[in-house]
Amino acid sequence: MSKETIELEKDHTHDKDFIASKQLIESMNIVDIAAALELMNKVTAIETFRMMPKNKAADVFAYLSREMQQHIVESITNPEIKSIINDLFVDDAVDFIEEMPASVVKRVLANAAKSQRELINQLLKYPRDSVGSIMTVEFVDLKASHTVAQAFDYIRKTGVDKETIYTCYVIDSSRKLLGIVSARALLLAEQTQKVSEIMKTSVISANTMDDKETLAPKFSKYDLLAMPVVDNEQRLVGIVTVDDAFDVQEQEATEDFEIMAAMSPSEEPYLKTSIRKLAKNRVFWLLLLMLSATFSGAVISSFEDALTALPVLVAFIPMLMNTGGCAGSQSAVLIIRGMALSEIKISDILAVWWKEIRIAVLCGAALVVVNFLRILIMNNDIIVALTVSLSLYVTVIMAKTVGSLLPMAAKQFRMDPAIMAAPVITTAVDAISLIIYFNLAKIIMGF
Amino acid sequence: MSKETIELEKDHTHDKDFIASKQLIESMNIVDIAAALELMNKVTAIETFRMMPKNKAADVFAYLSREMQQHIVESITNPEIKSIINDLFVDDAVDFIEEMPASVVKRVLANAAKSQRELINQLLKYPRDSVGSIMTVEFVDLKASHTVAQAFDYIRKTGVDKETIYTCYVIDSSRKLLGIVSARALLLAEQTQKVSEIMKTSVISANTMDDKETLAPKFSKYDLLAMPVVDNEQRLVGIVTVDDAFDVQEQEATEDFEIMAAMSPSEEPYLKTSIRKLAKNRVFWLLLLMLSATFSGAVISSFEDALTALPVLVAFIPMLMNTGGCAGSQSAVLIIRGMALSEIKISDILAVWWKEIRIAVLCGAALVVVNFLRILIMNNDIIVALTVSLSLYVTVIMAKTVGSLLPMAAKQFRMDPAIMAAPVITTAVDAISLIIYFNLAKIIMGF
Repeated sequence: MSKETIELEKDHTHDKDFIASKQLIESMNIVDIAAALELMNKVTAIETFRMMPKNKAADVFAYLSREMQQHIVESITNPEIKSIINDLFVDDAVDFIEEMPASVVKRVLANAAKSQRELINQLLKYPRDSVGSIMTVEFVDLKASHTVAQAFDYIRKTGVDKETIYTCYVIDSSRKLLGIVSARALLLAEQTQKVSEIMKTSVISANTMDDKETLAPKFSKYDLLAMPVVDNEQRLVGIVTVDDAFDVQEQEATEDFEIMAAMSPSEEPYLKTSIRKLAKNRVFWLLLLMLSATFSGAVISSFEDALTALPVLVAFIPMLMNTGGCAGSQSAVLIIRGMALSEIKISDILAVWWKEIRIAVLCGAALVVVNFLRILIMNNDIIVALTVSLSLYVTVIMAKTVGSLLPMAAKQFRMDPAIMAAPVITTAVDAISLIIYFNLAKIIMGF
Repeated sequence: MSKETIELEKDHTHDKDFIASKQLIESMNIVDIAAALELMNKVTAIETFRMMPKNKAADVFAYLSREMQQHIVESITNPEIKSIINDLFVDDAVDFIEEMPASVVKRVLANAAKSQRELINQLLKYPRDSVGSIMTVEFVDLKASHTVAQAFDYIRKTGVDKETIYTCYVIDSSRKLLGIVSARALLLAEQTQKVSEIMKTSVISANTMDDKETLAPKFSKYDLLAMPVVDNEQRLVGIVTVDDAFDVQEQEATEDFEIMAAMSPSEEPYLKTSIRKLAKNRVFWLLLLMLSATFSGAVISSFEDALTALPVLVAFIPMLMNTGGCAGSQSAVLIIRGMALSEIKISDILAVWWKEIRIAVLCGAALVVVNFLRILIMNNDIIVALTVSLSLYVTVIMAKTVGSLLPMAAKQFRMDPAIMAAPVITTAVDAISLIIYFNLAKIIMGF
């Protein structure tokens, strides 16, 4: 919490400090104002919110939590709602409306200007994870026949309502995208040049129905500030700005971390998520993994005779399982991340597998040597050392195979590869490594 | 001081001896030339320095005192600086730049070739992972007294060499940052307005020494296109643009994925990394985890009598270990990620732990019920079912405690919290859960 935030909160508890608060608000960043409002009691928050100038209020509103947004909308008058919803960028309005209960949505849409309402309804139609669902429709569109001077006039006239003016889009009469012009190119060009002369026609664009996960790799590769979004007829319908792509990237990474640790992904920050929700997100996978460990248990039970005859074998089970699980998840994680960043494709599957096999042979050799010596020193039993080490080698190679192939198979079957991370790999590797271990023990030790 | 040095100093005081001096310099050792320059008056030193062949000049420069270096840089032309800075060894350039005032640093970096500058930025006084190591120095700096029209003239004139012109930085005569002006604000303002009237003074900035990991959360929170970077005296020394922050975010996430899967992080894409390198990145952690599994093995060995007496207990070891490991890594991953996104702070440690305990109680209850019924049905042994289920409950609570506290402890001790992910948690949880299991079995079953 910044010093200003504390001050704002404190000040506002006294009405005589109203003017001071107002000045403070004027000097503060909208994101920080939003954070300060979240910390106030609800009555004070509403009072403070109403005190803000109209256009600032809408900006701040976009950064509030869903709860606070709902509370504000339920507390203010229809004209106030109207002013906020019409001042919001359409993509922010859509984000907000998507989370609200039906009664609030109805009241908000009823107060939106017709054009704004139409845009909102249009964006609400795109699927949850599509590019369409996060694009904005407030962009600057230029005509190819415009001169640079005309373009600037147009930007000055309409720019204030646009989400970005730094990339302008040149379209023809049927709204097909012809090219893009950066504000930089406009600024550095002669006033009399035509837009068509300075526009770039090789444009990186997205389709409304593309998965929003595909945006970040493109933004990153081409260092874009915004990307045009076209429909199936190549008509320009919106743009995605870099800040939204940035947020998507952060969310997607968080989601992958969560899925890879066997949790249902959640968009709320940890400290704001309820115990019930967190428990619910975790318990399903825990149950599944607990039950699938029954396989490993069954493998052990079926070799009970061997274990009774040679109980020393039991002591190496955790080492085999952990090393195998870790070897497998190393491969899985690199491949899952590589696919998420579009660095690895399904068609690379054989190259990846062959690479992992050779890594397994190298890593396995080091592990086996150390392991063999350790057992020899600590247990002084060359047969046990041999059995365990050989099992370990085969386990590492098997684990890297499983770890590399499962995520790619998941992708092939249109599942999220992140599901095939540590927990699943561990369960699979556990059972297989135990089978390898006991069978090798049987062969080598002959019981 | 050598005889030659004295001679050089003496010789150069006479212009007619210019050619002799040049020959002398050619024959002298660079360290001696540097020592000689230090002894000359400043005007003569500059003349002598300029007389030297280009590559020799750079070599000599590296041996000069900081004062003399500054004096030289302030006295020569940009092309001369360029030739020196590009010829300098990077570590020498860094040593030099580290000591210079911001104005000199800016001029030197602006004249370095791109590749040289990247290396310098990376090595400069700024540690490898600091904001300073990734910032750029090509930004537009405006004066508060400029009119909008003057600002545009300035941008048109200098903008072509700047990394971004969309955010301009307003500085005072000592290069202290006064505010920022977006190109958007300039475009929408009247030509006669002053920059000081339209600049924003509440600026989100970074310090050169901040960890570059801290950039992405700020870019994301405040939706920035660029962020100014200041030194300890609040002087503007560079900026970070959103594309670089984007790349850092992607790299940091990838690094966290790798560390959390027990690998040394690598910046190269998977398919372009050699087998040897990949194996090297993985083998250390595999070895460490393999050896630490010895603890779990030792626990099992110490209860060998119990296991021989009741071999059915062995079959539940994988279930207990996997469920515990998974429960612990769920907590660890959420907390590691929360800290990476600055959502969770060290001071939240008690709140986090208390949250995790309650989640463990909830999740554990569900697991225990299912587990108890499964064992009852499959093994038809209520004592075993009770022992295993109770062990499972205690293990889950213990695992969530370990999983939440270890990453925060790592952060407290300035280690990367990501190290405390699945593999480490698994190893710790394994050994503790086995101790819980066997001791509970001993108490309940009484052997």
